Amino acid sequence: MPTGPRIAIDAMGGDSGPAAMLAGAARALRKDKTLHFLVFGDEAAVRAELANHKTLTPNVTIVHSPESISSEEKPSQAIRRARTTSMGMAIGAVKDGHADAAVSAGNTGALMAMSKLALRTMPGIDRPALAALLPTMGEHDCVMLDLGANTECDAQNLVQFAVMGSAYARTVLSISKPRVKLLNIGTEELKGTDELKEAAALLRDANYLPLKFDGFTEGDQLSRGNIDVVVTDGFSGNIALKTAEGTARFVTDLLRRAFKSSLRSKAGFALSKPALNLLKVHLDPNNHNGAVFLGLNGLIVKSHGGANPKGVANAIFVASSMVRNDITRRIGEDLDNFRAHAFAAAEQAAQ
Amino acid sequence: MPTGPRIAIDAMGGDSGPAAMLAGAARALRKDKTLHFLVFGDEAAVRAELANHKTLTPNVTIVHSPESISSEEKPSQAIRRARTTSMGMAIGAVKDGHADAAVSAGNTGALMAMSKLALRTMPGIDRPALAALLPTMGEHDCVMLDLGANTECDAQNLVQFAVMGSAYARTVLSISKPRVKLLNIGTEELKGTDELKEAAALLRDANYLPLKFDGFTEGDQLSRGNIDVVVTDGFSGNIALKTAEGTARFVTDLLRRAFKSSLRSKAGFALSKPALNLLKVHLDPNNHNGAVFLGLNGLIVKSHGGANPKGVANAIFVASSMVRNDITRRIGEDLDNFRAHAFAAAEQAAQ
Repeated sequence: MPTGPRIAIDAMGGDSGPAAMLAGAARALRKDKTLHFLVFGDEAAVRAELANHKTLTPNVTIVHSPESISSEEKPSQAIRRARTTSMGMAIGAVKDGHADAAVSAGNTGALMAMSKLALRTMPGIDRPALAALLPTMGEHDCVMLDLGANTECDAQNLVQFAVMGSAYARTVLSISKPRVKLLNIGTEELKGTDELKEAAALLRDANYLPLKFDGFTEGDQLSRGNIDVVVTDGFSGNIALKTAEGTARFVTDLLRRAFKSSLRSKAGFALSKPALNLLKVHLDPNNHNGAVFLGLNGLIVKSHGGANPKGVANAIFVASSMVRNDITRRIGEDLDNFRAHAFAAAEQAAQ
Repeated sequence: MPTGPRIAIDAMGGDSGPAAMLAGAARALRKDKTLHFLVFGDEAAVRAELANHKTLTPNVTIVHSPESISSEEKPSQAIRRARTTSMGMAIGAVKDGHADAAVSAGNTGALMAMSKLALRTMPGIDRPALAALLPTMGEHDCVMLDLGANTECDAQNLVQFAVMGSAYARTVLSISKPRVKLLNIGTEELKGTDELKEAAALLRDANYLPLKFDGFTEGDQLSRGNIDVVVTDGFSGNIALKTAEGTARFVTDLLRRAFKSSLRSKAGFALSKPALNLLKVHLDPNNHNGAVFLGLNGLIVKSHGGANPKGVANAIFVASSMVRNDITRRIGEDLDNFRAHAFAAAEQAAQ
């Protein structure tokens, strides 16, 4: 019997459903034999795919779910089908303690809404946020949140995101006091929305937190490698993340076109290929797959809808690493600390 | 006497002041002998730089300005010094008809505030927007606005940006009916803020406009080459633009590192160099320099603070091209058309 993290898998989400999800689980298992998977989906479809991954069988429990959530489904409709859908049942397994985390490649809005309803937000958190790691030129990736869970955010939300993102950086990147910045359209104190200015003022005062707040940053600094945690509202965060993905593809497309433009550059390409493959690995979104909903009483990981088996395996590793590092407890401690100080400061101010 | 567009130059703005601005003007003049420049700045500093560009002298009129606007200055303070600063006086020259357009590399917020106060917005425009061309994989660049002039925008603002951006695309890119999309965090109708949903509804109905509204787009589609005009609020637009710039630099930095990683890849780089130079040209922000404030009764072009002489020359070409294409009149016609139809529709609804 496996003794490692028990991961619930929503087999029906994502562009290629059970095929990618089970191939991803098989890939993850090759690297970590201790994993156990609770696979939720249409039993016949899951069994058919499982036949292609015999090694997986001993570490899988299939749970039949009669329905699934489509990518077009409104979150408000999805939540009514929590008990009958692969997504809802995978989340339910985390709630009931049968799984330590759930991974889904399905409809983000529905996943968020169902997770929030089933798991509830942690004490001190008004809204959970979607966090992921961005590649940088530096020694490690950069944590960015929110990536699209909350279209509009107030100052309190942003401060809570900073606390959660820092706990994530401390856990996953092993940085004891992460450097946190707020994403803005300029670095001067007077720039940006009122929410950003207020959040900056709150964070500047919160020097008892295990993070180093360092003001505002701009979109062109995200991949420089000198920020550990970038905090933003879900609208801007989603735009920034997708623009970065699109631009990376744009530049590599231009590069491919340049290499094909002459016989000479084709020869140059052939020579440089091993080095260029490193670049390809660095930029492959599958290597950065797995965004986490932070701030819930339970771990939910969102895999990209178009992720390949390697990407799904990475999303599973994100989930298992957070289970092992007990991130939910860590965030809880930071939040307790934050509230205790905020309360003491309010008491002092009132005297 | 030159007969082409008369361009007012704020010589004191930007990271390298008169040096870059005059070298840029000299460069622009080599390509277009008809240009005339009204150069505003500290007379001694401007004369000293002009000595390095003898060919420029016959086409330059220097106007001494005793002061300049710093990059840290608040817009609310800057507007009080409109009559004594190089930026304020360059804008004033457009207002008074001494110049056809002004180019500044100075403080964007101050430039926006001073321009708005001096030139006023066009009838039918509540807020001007900053527009620029983004490089794409397609046959032509893509117009994007707003890039930072308005932190928050309502639906009416976004519709007006669509009208202005389309007039810009018709003029500068020669597209008779530009394909317009709203930047959002998903393409489904229910995605995004209320402002975006309302703007989409208004644009969907406005089929009499010389544009083809085509719904929402996401950050990863901006450089695909299948959109002519991308409309967004100034906060998201600025984040997207800067993230794209940062990511392009990130990928080329990784590429440089890859090429240096072995002797073999160094040889490959040497062979591919001519092809890679094309890529460099395509991505150089100086080749896309020159953002335009659309919606004012006068043309103001913002050059990047760090632009080199080639970049400044491109900003000057953006200005002269818009003067020649009479873009202010074109936008005015589209707005009149839009308001006439909106009025007729309201009348019909009231009957």
